[in-house]
Amino acid sequence: MKRIYLDYAATTPLEPRARKAMEPYFSKEFANPNALYAEGIVAKKAIDKARAKVARALEAHSDEIIFTSGGTEANNLAIFGSVHQERFLPHIITTNIEHSSVLEPLRELARRGEIEVSYISVEPDGIVKPEKIISAIRSNTVLISVQYANNEIGTIQPIAKIGKALRELKHRPLFHVDACQAPLYLNCLVNALGVDLFSLDAHKIYGPKGVGCLYVRRGVNLTPILYGGGQEREMRSTTENVSGIVGFGEAISIAVSSRERESARVFVLRDILYTKVLLIKKIIVNGSIKKDERLPNNLNISLPGIDTEMLVLKLDAEGIAVSTKSSCLKDERESYVVKSLNNSQLQANSTLRFTLGKYNTKKDIEYTAKTLLKLININKSS
Amino acid sequence: MKRIYLDYAATTPLEPRARKAMEPYFSKEFANPNALYAEGIVAKKAIDKARAKVARALEAHSDEIIFTSGGTEANNLAIFGSVHQERFLPHIITTNIEHSSVLEPLRELARRGEIEVSYISVEPDGIVKPEKIISAIRSNTVLISVQYANNEIGTIQPIAKIGKALRELKHRPLFHVDACQAPLYLNCLVNALGVDLFSLDAHKIYGPKGVGCLYVRRGVNLTPILYGGGQEREMRSTTENVSGIVGFGEAISIAVSSRERESARVFVLRDILYTKVLLIKKIIVNGSIKKDERLPNNLNISLPGIDTEMLVLKLDAEGIAVSTKSSCLKDERESYVVKSLNNSQLQANSTLRFTLGKYNTKKDIEYTAKTLLKLININKSS
Repeated sequence: MKRIYLDYAATTPLEPRARKAMEPYFSKEFANPNALYAEGIVAKKAIDKARAKVARALEAHSDEIIFTSGGTEANNLAIFGSVHQERFLPHIITTNIEHSSVLEPLRELARRGEIEVSYISVEPDGIVKPEKIISAIRSNTVLISVQYANNEIGTIQPIAKIGKALRELKHRPLFHVDACQAPLYLNCLVNALGVDLFSLDAHKIYGPKGVGCLYVRRGVNLTPILYGGGQEREMRSTTENVSGIVGFGEAISIAVSSRERESARVFVLRDILYTKVLLIKKIIVNGSIKKDERLPNNLNISLPGIDTEMLVLKLDAEGIAVSTKSSCLKDERESYVVKSLNNSQLQANSTLRFTLGKYNTKKDIEYTAKTLLKLININKSS
Repeated sequence: MKRIYLDYAATTPLEPRARKAMEPYFSKEFANPNALYAEGIVAKKAIDKARAKVARALEAHSDEIIFTSGGTEANNLAIFGSVHQERFLPHIITTNIEHSSVLEPLRELARRGEIEVSYISVEPDGIVKPEKIISAIRSNTVLISVQYANNEIGTIQPIAKIGKALRELKHRPLFHVDACQAPLYLNCLVNALGVDLFSLDAHKIYGPKGVGCLYVRRGVNLTPILYGGGQEREMRSTTENVSGIVGFGEAISIAVSSRERESARVFVLRDILYTKVLLIKKIIVNGSIKKDERLPNNLNISLPGIDTEMLVLKLDAEGIAVSTKSSCLKDERESYVVKSLNNSQLQANSTLRFTLGKYNTKKDIEYTAKTLLKLININKSS
């Protein structure tokens, strides 16, 4: 049976061109990029080239790109790195629907008594109001962390508006954006967005797992997480993952060049799915469905009264791979993201997430909609 | 010109069998191992299998293996993770020739006023006396960190002796061993060695860059460095680098099965090189050259009065890749490891490190010795 993968927000397959770009750096040009001899220089140049590609995708400087082991480390570095040993208690502002790799570092720092956190609630449509963020700023606010697009419900936050409002302030905190879900579909120009720190993850954009980066605006000093040989301008020590970095550089270049076309294509497919699932009685669509407020590849619904974990397994048996919520929340039944929309538990523990990607066809989507409707009807009559 | 790579301590080429084992997990079995559907289970099983391979190499339990982004993160996790928020000031014991990924986290914690550190000097032969470690233990000692084999001079520390002495204590600190240089040549059985924490790095043993692990003995609780989705038993959150982990599992299995044969083979080659370089006047061999006190693939010499960085470039031009010291110390002229042996600056800033590996032949070594002698003689007569 042909499998239909509809969980591209969880991870993506490695793009063949990225795969090919990586190949020389496994066994042939394998040297340590910090070495003085010819082989070391080859590896160093490969990293420099990939760094320039990532920088170009963000319209940033190469020296502003700090490679990490992925989005989680990038988010952790942004947060832990912004909290220096101050004489005052630092304050951080975020939203209540951030990814766990933002929320958990904040909870840990708060538990240690090292920060205060304000969690700004998103509106029922899953969008945060910029004025709520801005009005939460205090004299001890050191960081604002808001995701670009949500990994569960796909809602797009008004990053440029927040960035603009921050620029008008005399003393402004650092502005961090978790953009891991963004590059395939959204403009990632850091200056236009007005951000200081910007997290990316290769495996969400058809790059390899185990590599990501944090954009760090020139002049911003972060306390490192990893200490050692002083790589990545002393902000992230460890021997560079050369092949991974090369694959990431290739993947982000492809993401930018195919963004417009692929966004339009998945938007059409997503809307076919959306239109068909609206036939389900009692269905709730989670988050804004407006074109500029939601990733074009995301559909997140709640089916109150239906055990959607069981439904995922039934869809799996029919050849369809979808999820109920974030794959980074394995032990929790309900989605805190969906719960935050209007505090309905019924809605939060019956979620189903479809996230489309480059290998999905119209036929796949039609089969998925048909199968979903069939399974729900069986469910009801049984 | 055929290139002769003699910097295997800096990094190694990916072993073709490890490379092959990784292949399915790039674009085909690419799913997120935390997903519920069939593809997720395939990825999860691949990680489980690799984890079992690493555990078997150490005679450990699978649940004691925490995958990381490499040796640096493993060492950082062991150190930062052992320092909890105690009511007393924790004390840590280490040696003065540890890798920078051990020394720098310690320096950072000391700088923050969060720990006290005792740096135990190694003897002039590069070996630490176990009794010096043991007698440095205080009531507030929480961790002892001693490397298994040194990355620059290849000296092997008496880990099992320290482990045994520690077991006889009533209240004993955690015992961490940075074993990144060890698995190709040394027994890595964690129970026989008596260690609690044990760092490994895939790219030092013909595995991929960007992956490593920390062995964490059952019952030992570490504070994580990375927070998020709770992967790796909540000790290291982030989407698992599936292909990297699979490659690491394969590489360590091969390392163990070929250890005896390959150790004997490189030992013979290293001794050919050693015998020939002894013809150089004023040469100093750094660290013990006794068979059970030094990695069989390592030769580290000082050539007082010679600019060995320049010599590295000249050897490079002759097709030979060697280093002066650790590749994780790019901005420092002298080797702190060699300097610690007898505090001679002349010796420490004229080092040359040869580290052999599986692709070196007798012919390579003879050519290297001949070329080195030629270049030094040219140097002298000029």
